[in-house]
Amino acid sequence: MRINGQHTRTIWVNGDGWSVEIIDQTKLPHVFETVTLRSMEDAARAISDMLVRGAPLIGATAAYGVALAMREDTSDAALEHAIQVLGATRPTAVNLHWALADMKARLLPLGASDRLDIAYERAAQICDEDVETCRLIGAHGLQLIRALAEKKNGDPVNILTHCNAGWLACIDWGTATSPVYQAQAEGIPVHVWVDETRPRNQGAFLTAFELGQEGVPHTIIVDNAGGHLMQHGLVDFCITGTDRVTADGDVANKIGTYLKALAAADNNVPFYVALPHSTIDWSLSDGVKEIPIEERNPAEVTAMQGRVPGGEVVTVDIAAPGSPAANYGFDVTPGRLVTGFVTERGLCDASRQGLLSLYPEQARASA
Amino acid sequence: MRINGQHTRTIWVNGDGWSVEIIDQTKLPHVFETVTLRSMEDAARAISDMLVRGAPLIGATAAYGVALAMREDTSDAALEHAIQVLGATRPTAVNLHWALADMKARLLPLGASDRLDIAYERAAQICDEDVETCRLIGAHGLQLIRALAEKKNGDPVNILTHCNAGWLACIDWGTATSPVYQAQAEGIPVHVWVDETRPRNQGAFLTAFELGQEGVPHTIIVDNAGGHLMQHGLVDFCITGTDRVTADGDVANKIGTYLKALAAADNNVPFYVALPHSTIDWSLSDGVKEIPIEERNPAEVTAMQGRVPGGEVVTVDIAAPGSPAANYGFDVTPGRLVTGFVTERGLCDASRQGLLSLYPEQARASA
Repeated sequence: MRINGQHTRTIWVNGDGWSVEIIDQTKLPHVFETVTLRSMEDAARAISDMLVRGAPLIGATAAYGVALAMREDTSDAALEHAIQVLGATRPTAVNLHWALADMKARLLPLGASDRLDIAYERAAQICDEDVETCRLIGAHGLQLIRALAEKKNGDPVNILTHCNAGWLACIDWGTATSPVYQAQAEGIPVHVWVDETRPRNQGAFLTAFELGQEGVPHTIIVDNAGGHLMQHGLVDFCITGTDRVTADGDVANKIGTYLKALAAADNNVPFYVALPHSTIDWSLSDGVKEIPIEERNPAEVTAMQGRVPGGEVVTVDIAAPGSPAANYGFDVTPGRLVTGFVTERGLCDASRQGLLSLYPEQARASA
Repeated sequence: MRINGQHTRTIWVNGDGWSVEIIDQTKLPHVFETVTLRSMEDAARAISDMLVRGAPLIGATAAYGVALAMREDTSDAALEHAIQVLGATRPTAVNLHWALADMKARLLPLGASDRLDIAYERAAQICDEDVETCRLIGAHGLQLIRALAEKKNGDPVNILTHCNAGWLACIDWGTATSPVYQAQAEGIPVHVWVDETRPRNQGAFLTAFELGQEGVPHTIIVDNAGGHLMQHGLVDFCITGTDRVTADGDVANKIGTYLKALAAADNNVPFYVALPHSTIDWSLSDGVKEIPIEERNPAEVTAMQGRVPGGEVVTVDIAAPGSPAANYGFDVTPGRLVTGFVTERGLCDASRQGLLSLYPEQARASA
């Protein structure tokens, strides 16, 4: 999608043919700045320090991390080491492990001299495949928005989203935002309620930024507001991304997603989750019991980054001095609260039966 | 309760016998500073700019505002004018209108020369009555915490609260916090999950501050976290205050309360609301339809006050440049999601029948 009118992806190989460029998303929306990754360790740090975030982009960055590792050493040991280091950067992200397993499966059988070229080739392919996946998610989700628009008589379809499952979390298009961008492109009037998404403010910082850059009408709200909006008919449709979906349709996503799903269910507002197939963890069933939830640095709760007048970015303390804080990164929304999934293969119920209807090969795989 | 070990109320008459002192709560927790009110207009500004907030303290400040007006002019016209100006400061606060109606009913029948003394006397009485009301709310709520503690085998009772319904919102004790303070005084181990409460951060700023000053163990969390905590058995009890309760038991409170009540219901966690009788609006039944919700300045969402290292308090922008925001102040939690009310007369169901069981005189009043 566009930044300052220029089409941009979130990760690309530079003109030198080997170093990898990413957007430093920790600085958005205050500053647009890119960072060059020159080693596997650079890639690992970019993931763990959240310069890149979002399941697909984390996977793509890990894949390029493996490619960067191969530049230095193409041995089996170096490959195993890279996969171990990169795999330890973010425990909840299943895409990370999917991308690393994919890279390993392709590179390990090759002779050491072939690994470097194939690693870069495959990383580029992972990016292109994600762009196509997100485009397809958008095309399927667009059907839902189109149907809602028909009932609105030209009024905008009000869409609520949490966190950032936009193109900044992917390579392009985004997951939850892809239907919105495609609706806008088709001339359907849309308006997005953007949950601020404390504590890291990915909504107010990233989703609002990318919607603004694409000219999509939107309004930032605090995470507390969605229930009130739904009670008053001001939300037609909720759509979020996800970090991990179980085979039974439970959804791990940014902390607070569960609260919005409860409000949607209480007010009969459709609540959809957009995801690529790589986000489904077929080995898990009960998400609340089985998905480990990352506890992050409490300073993310008690301090916040912002711009002072003049543009300088500073970090301020925003809690009573001496009061401790806790920082749970994700929560799990049970499938019973999710109206449906939007994947690259189409729409389905948030259940094992629903997922297997789109991915029947998984039934055969586990049979 | 205590600030720096010293027992303090939120509002008092100074040694000069007429000027009124309040804590500037917009500066907490960064700076503890008091402000002197010398006129009715000072009192009105203190309410509308939220130097004082919380239903009981707003009512008490309005009562002293009438007293300050009487210092300048004790005519009927001056009394009516004061009540009009003070009544327009915060639309949602029913205590404000209760206190003003009470002052008017007592002062208007008097001769003009008696009004000044009686106004100060009655304002002081309103404060003392609120302290006693809050003490009684605490005594009744304590029963609930005591019963939960019996099942915890010495582990702390985990209590979640939203916004600040603490003594800073009242004159002393608080409403939602009063049972907590009384449990702590009785030696029951308690721990409070403090919702940050965006956009004005009354949880992280005020509730955390007052719990810290009283030595009550607590942890600040983002507003998104409560659902996750409840799913994992980490919350034994929710208690909040309220700005207005309808005769059918619907609860208007700080935006986001409804989301916590939904999560509590979904996880069988008891959800109580603490209130003095003056918060009940017997003229309303369906809260979602009938209670007007204040829309506040969007800058409260897109900018935040905090301390930079060194202690200076600055305001920083925390949203994508150019993105608009909306700022709904309150939401309504339907009575069906509320386990019960804790009032100065005891516990009851969140329903008309429940409220009438404690306030039978209201049934006679409306019969």
